[in-house]
Amino acid sequence: MNGNSPKWVYSFAAGASDGGAGMRNLLGGKGANLAEMSSLGLPVPPGFTITTDLCNYYYANDQTYPDALRGQVKTALEAIEIDVGTVFGDSDNPLLVSVRSGARASMPGMMDTVLNLGLNDETVAGLAARSGDARFAFDSYRRFIQMYSDVVLGVDHYMFEEVLEQHKMDSGLVLDTDLAADDWKSIVVHYKKIVERELDAPFPQDPHEQLWGAIGAVFGSWMNQRAITYRRLQNIPAEWGTAVNVQAMVFGNMGDDCATGVAFSRDPSTGENIFYGEYLVNAQGEDVVAGIRTPQHLTVAGKERNGSDLPAMEEVMPEVFEQLSEVRSRLEFHYKDMQDIEFTVQNNKLYMLQTRAGKRTAAAAIRIAVDMVDEGLISQSDAILRVEAGQLDQLLHPRLDPDAPRNILSKGLPASPGAASGRIVLSADLAEDMARRGEDVILVRIETSPEDIHGMHAARGILTTRGGMTSHAAVVARGMGRPCVAGAGEINVDYGKGQVRVGNRILKVGEPITIDGATGEIIDGEVATIEPEMSGDFTKLMTWADGIRRLDIRTNAETPVDARTARDFGAEGIGLCRTEHMFFDPERIVAVRRMILAEDLTGRCAALDELLPFQRQDFVELFTIMSGLPVTIRLLDPPLHEFLPKSEAEVAEVARAAGSDSSAMTDRAMQLHESNPMLGHRGCRLGITYPEIYEMQARAIFEAAVSVAKDADETVLPEIMIPLAATRKEIDILRDRIDHVAESVFREAGVRIEYQVGTMIELPRAALRAGEIAESAEFFSFGTNDLTQTTFGISRDDASSFLTDYEHQGIIEVDPFVSIDVDGVGELITIAADRGRKARRDIKLGICGEHGGDPASVKFCDRAGLDYVSCSPYRVPIARLAAAQASVESGD
Amino acid sequence: MNGNSPKWVYSFAAGASDGGAGMRNLLGGKGANLAEMSSLGLPVPPGFTITTDLCNYYYANDQTYPDALRGQVKTALEAIEIDVGTVFGDSDNPLLVSVRSGARASMPGMMDTVLNLGLNDETVAGLAARSGDARFAFDSYRRFIQMYSDVVLGVDHYMFEEVLEQHKMDSGLVLDTDLAADDWKSIVVHYKKIVERELDAPFPQDPHEQLWGAIGAVFGSWMNQRAITYRRLQNIPAEWGTAVNVQAMVFGNMGDDCATGVAFSRDPSTGENIFYGEYLVNAQGEDVVAGIRTPQHLTVAGKERNGSDLPAMEEVMPEVFEQLSEVRSRLEFHYKDMQDIEFTVQNNKLYMLQTRAGKRTAAAAIRIAVDMVDEGLISQSDAILRVEAGQLDQLLHPRLDPDAPRNILSKGLPASPGAASGRIVLSADLAEDMARRGEDVILVRIETSPEDIHGMHAARGILTTRGGMTSHAAVVARGMGRPCVAGAGEINVDYGKGQVRVGNRILKVGEPITIDGATGEIIDGEVATIEPEMSGDFTKLMTWADGIRRLDIRTNAETPVDARTARDFGAEGIGLCRTEHMFFDPERIVAVRRMILAEDLTGRCAALDELLPFQRQDFVELFTIMSGLPVTIRLLDPPLHEFLPKSEAEVAEVARAAGSDSSAMTDRAMQLHESNPMLGHRGCRLGITYPEIYEMQARAIFEAAVSVAKDADETVLPEIMIPLAATRKEIDILRDRIDHVAESVFREAGVRIEYQVGTMIELPRAALRAGEIAESAEFFSFGTNDLTQTTFGISRDDASSFLTDYEHQGIIEVDPFVSIDVDGVGELITIAADRGRKARRDIKLGICGEHGGDPASVKFCDRAGLDYVSCSPYRVPIARLAAAQASVESGD
Repeated sequence: MNGNSPKWVYSFAAGASDGGAGMRNLLGGKGANLAEMSSLGLPVPPGFTITTDLCNYYYANDQTYPDALRGQVKTALEAIEIDVGTVFGDSDNPLLVSVRSGARASMPGMMDTVLNLGLNDETVAGLAARSGDARFAFDSYRRFIQMYSDVVLGVDHYMFEEVLEQHKMDSGLVLDTDLAADDWKSIVVHYKKIVERELDAPFPQDPHEQLWGAIGAVFGSWMNQRAITYRRLQNIPAEWGTAVNVQAMVFGNMGDDCATGVAFSRDPSTGENIFYGEYLVNAQGEDVVAGIRTPQHLTVAGKERNGSDLPAMEEVMPEVFEQLSEVRSRLEFHYKDMQDIEFTVQNNKLYMLQTRAGKRTAAAAIRIAVDMVDEGLISQSDAILRVEAGQLDQLLHPRLDPDAPRNILSKGLPASPGAASGRIVLSADLAEDMARRGEDVILVRIETSPEDIHGMHAARGILTTRGGMTSHAAVVARGMGRPCVAGAGEINVDYGKGQVRVGNRILKVGEPITIDGATGEIIDGEVATIEPEMSGDFTKLMTWADGIRRLDIRTNAETPVDARTARDFGAEGIGLCRTEHMFFDPERIVAVRRMILAEDLTGRCAALDELLPFQRQDFVELFTIMSGLPVTIRLLDPPLHEFLPKSEAEVAEVARAAGSDSSAMTDRAMQLHESNPMLGHRGCRLGITYPEIYEMQARAIFEAAVSVAKDADETVLPEIMIPLAATRKEIDILRDRIDHVAESVFREAGVRIEYQVGTMIELPRAALRAGEIAESAEFFSFGTNDLTQTTFGISRDDASSFLTDYEHQGIIEVDPFVSIDVDGVGELITIAADRGRKARRDIKLGICGEHGGDPASVKFCDRAGLDYVSCSPYRVPIARLAAAQASVESGD
Repeated sequence: MNGNSPKWVYSFAAGASDGGAGMRNLLGGKGANLAEMSSLGLPVPPGFTITTDLCNYYYANDQTYPDALRGQVKTALEAIEIDVGTVFGDSDNPLLVSVRSGARASMPGMMDTVLNLGLNDETVAGLAARSGDARFAFDSYRRFIQMYSDVVLGVDHYMFEEVLEQHKMDSGLVLDTDLAADDWKSIVVHYKKIVERELDAPFPQDPHEQLWGAIGAVFGSWMNQRAITYRRLQNIPAEWGTAVNVQAMVFGNMGDDCATGVAFSRDPSTGENIFYGEYLVNAQGEDVVAGIRTPQHLTVAGKERNGSDLPAMEEVMPEVFEQLSEVRSRLEFHYKDMQDIEFTVQNNKLYMLQTRAGKRTAAAAIRIAVDMVDEGLISQSDAILRVEAGQLDQLLHPRLDPDAPRNILSKGLPASPGAASGRIVLSADLAEDMARRGEDVILVRIETSPEDIHGMHAARGILTTRGGMTSHAAVVARGMGRPCVAGAGEINVDYGKGQVRVGNRILKVGEPITIDGATGEIIDGEVATIEPEMSGDFTKLMTWADGIRRLDIRTNAETPVDARTARDFGAEGIGLCRTEHMFFDPERIVAVRRMILAEDLTGRCAALDELLPFQRQDFVELFTIMSGLPVTIRLLDPPLHEFLPKSEAEVAEVARAAGSDSSAMTDRAMQLHESNPMLGHRGCRLGITYPEIYEMQARAIFEAAVSVAKDADETVLPEIMIPLAATRKEIDILRDRIDHVAESVFREAGVRIEYQVGTMIELPRAALRAGEIAESAEFFSFGTNDLTQTTFGISRDDASSFLTDYEHQGIIEVDPFVSIDVDGVGELITIAADRGRKARRDIKLGICGEHGGDPASVKFCDRAGLDYVSCSPYRVPIARLAAAQASVESGD
């Protein structure tokens, strides 16, 4: 190796390796773990890793390699030859290798694996001779040709499948296992002809050419569309690059003393500390993952629990199983996390092919994290970081009501927990489209592939008719926290007709269906749901999180039900009570409309007087539920025309109640019409022009506060929030009027209540002028929905027509209405927080947009030094955990 | 005087004074000028000024005075007594004083004047004896009671007028001059009874009580609604405060050797260097200004020029006139500006009561400034500052076409130049309302008062039936640059019936009318207009301005006519060519609509192909007109639904042309409908999702550029501007496509053209991310209309429902769509300019919102270091002058 060139290639072999788990960035996840396992002395087939730096070099240099690479690969290959005692390309005793991609984070969508590389017309004979199994050798060769042609040469795999099917039909054979060596030989000839026809060049016979082709394909796949999409969804930077792992082949398909399998060191669904996994005798690894053969359980317990008739590995290969169990313990102890491992048994010898942190459900993540703290493996802070906050969603949403009637259509595997109802869609694109339009959909597929990720993300749940618990659909759904029922074989999907059939029942696209990922049930129509209950582990983890987090977590709630739910979930007050939601109540809407239609102040005040007792009662309930905690009440925000009736009957009703006629109502609606209501006469602009509305609301708040404090002896902490301010003067004027109302209510009641008056910061100008606004406002609540709309100049209601294109073209990485745009909106928040604090040292700062429940946004709020985030009730635990993670990550 | 207390009172008397013209901030305009005139030795009646600091003290201390004030006033009053040889309150030889307000800037709307203060039942006898004219003494007393009761005590003046009318009827008298001393005595008795009845207290007899009452009334009037409104319109801060001037009375109404008048040192309409003014014999000053008696001219020339029969002062009082002429010269030489002076002649002795810079028309301002440079009085820089840039508007707008038929209804005084057509309105409020709705209105009033200022501001022109060239209407209209015809006595205004009558012709509110402020003509209906021509002085001033300004001035123009007009006005290129305006041409709109309705790319491209030659021809013309100057072309900006047909006939026509049916068109319109189009699928978002539209436009631009450069050998400097970007990626993607089109056009033509690609900065996010955007954009043009909308969260289309209230409540001082909001929008511009320059040192920066023609905004752009402003063609001269003023003011 030239001393001047960087080290591009890292070797590993059982008991010794150049790399280790700490070199994940350079070697990728798989490479680092292979190196680590090798260092631990585990039985890892020898191999080497080409680094992620090489990937970056490759793209920075017009897809070429540095000169030194070839020599380094040659040296590493020779080391494998020496270790295994075979020679690459040798016709007697050939070394075969696998070539796999391996990025820093697990990345479906990239070129995955080429197996059996090194086989050609000569070495296949050597393999046949050495293994004493010509059938195995030619089967391996045809697998290699098909896989290599598909992923490296770009020849569609269906062509090969057709040849195989044709051969079977011609020969009257049914199963692959029915084919003999000569069959495979003849198929190999056919396969090579297909390649030559498609590419105008023969299938490469030179093993080195094969190797470099596969290496190029791995690096090339880093920039394919699927990989780019996945990175976009997962926020993985392109600069991370992928590594390439080349490793000596071992064979799980050389006979009945061979096997291959995947295992989790704990149950990835429940987190239970049991050895959980599946294997297949006489198979290659892909057979297990692809779900083509039904896999068998590793343990007897697992087999019994799942009512399987097939023998467990524990029974079939007890010694190897014992060895695998030991590996499981060592790996968990070593990595201090639940491991997802792949293994192969070749002639009763165990080989470890991969280990990595296992994907798990939220419930499992919590249980594992808490158990591992109890077992002394990790600290409480570690445990907090181990559970992805967003995943908690899985635990927090309703389950199917066990007492609700269910018309069960069929049953599949309970692949990812949670239940969901939605309309049937059969394609990922339609799923995305309909979800953008606000529809709940269930994505139904024969099986899923990386191309479907965006649709799985958009769907409420996923149903497949093929594949097992470790199939693509199941793994991805668990990671995303989507309920999934997999392998529901009784269901027939007809993409062409746009329908699914279960027996005689035909369901068209668009019809409602329900899946229960906890039981595997598929149910006709929608099913009633019940509230989730939290496990003891959940409570424990949340207590640890509460102990460490700096941010307070409040909730957005208007109704007593929401407020109570949120308090049960740990909300520390209300951060946003949108009073307009209270206006839509059927009992009140007529009075609201009369208020809007009133021709003069007297008429308006009369209608407002009718509303006052309702509003007061709303606040009495909220203050009582939130006793001792702050309650932030936003005064009326939306433009008045939003409350006007749409239907003729409604128009007539209001006209009657107002003693007016329908045409006056229509005129008023015309008069109130706005071209851009989002930027129109709303928020505090209503308060400025119709003082009596805010005065009524202030009176309702103070009368309620006084009543709860006096009659119920509860501590009431009202915070009155002025929406959509752009200037300090607006706050000055409205604050003055609010204080005035407060004084008169306190005087009437003979009681005084402490209260604050603050404002939303939801316009860029308000953020910039936060210094002077803070002189008048006692708190800021960042309304990140509106702030995002105005900062980007994008109406959320109209964004769907271009935002999808924007994501696909990589203009934006994440929908800014889902996760705060740190660069733009974030800078305004930071500016406002700084200027606000400078003007008023103890100003209270929070956010109350929907971002308050998004973990990345919560972490941003922590970094920006806010005091609290407020989110919808079901997001409260997510926000609590994300806030704790922010504290741990910032080293507080 | 207590050495510890501040000096609140400044005395003045002919030949000596405590203050001077430099103390305007402390003494107010009137006080400073009285002091200055006194110091110059001019015949000023002695008096004193209470400072504006006292006004601020007064409001900061619950409307009370500091202890030291009373002593200082007493001392100053004694000084007057000594000077004049009379004693305040002395029944034999009483001192009478006037009390006037006097702020830093002239402020209609405040308490103006109380005259004859010091008169009571005893002193009136002394005055009668001393003057030998009991009739004069009691007339003065009744005037004092009426004026003091009205402005200090708040008793409506109509009550006094009724008594006077009743007395005249009872006595069979017609004119005031018919009344004898006893008549006035009896009226005084009645007047005092009215006061006692209304206030339950007698009219104050103590002169000191009278004096303090008047002082309090002046300070109190600083905060009345009219004064607040005026300050808001004129951007005068409340902190400036007003001073109070107390001055010995002199009388212009003590007989025929007495007179009073107002004069301008040059003609305020034309700027001609002639002595211009009006006077009345035996009158008090208010009689001239109020327009009750028709005033006489000062000079014989003035009398002849105006065809007046009444003798000139030059003829009636030649010696005093000679003295006044000398004062005129001294004041002009001293102040180096045209002066507006007030004088009184008492028994053939001249007294100067006021001098101040005279209000003037734009034409006069230019002529005076240029003449004064020629006369060596001021420098070119001074001249540039002497002309209010916004006022140029008067000179730049069309005049009535002299050949157009006119149905002249009547004629009044040509009180403020310019011509205007509009609908008749009779109230200021309606004028404001209709103007907000985009209507041109003419405000017609019997006379105007400070309450009408907002309506005068909103109207295109003002017509009054009473008052002269120095009436309220005339003075205010000239200051505002509104055409005004005053004193059109033949016209009868009936507010109750909502109509005006001229002879038999009745015009209702809403009917169109035209006024010509240059001739005084009032014309039925609308009249055709012609373009203004610039005077030689204008050209001279503009040349000086161009020599000193740093900012370039471009224009917003799409049509050849606009481009040519702008170039004639001195535009140095096009800063904004809005290509969508070209789409609305009737020849093209069908193709545009077909493009929008196209079901696929092929259909869309076919329609775009049809548009290409039209767009190319547009650009050929613009490039030719602007040869050698940059032309910034903004790619399509508005949402596509704006182009869709509204009427059924249009729908059918497009459907036919597109081979589609009307229902498809309606569907497409539904599909394109947006809740908030301002924040919707527009600007570069269209370019991202429909690449072919921008590609067609780019092709049209480059083909036109190549053709003009090649065939006509003109220098073409195209700048392609991408609208509504929020991210750098948008520019990257679109720039790439534009460069691609350019390459292919250049290759086809065998010619290369230099061009730039830049972006609008019109979203807060773009301003914040300007650093990275500048890496991709070669220029920024601040789209301040959209930037104001998004920064404030205010839709300009919907703002009228609350922005008026916002102005009235003082929340915003100036409509941010008229003048840049320096604090909010301005900070974003500054941030973007800094970050843009940091990333790309030579980045070109400009603005192209409508603010580009607003003088205050132009000055902001100069301070912010932009390279150019772009405005509508008629605003180009205004921008040139404002830019020069910015340079002078910044000391460049």
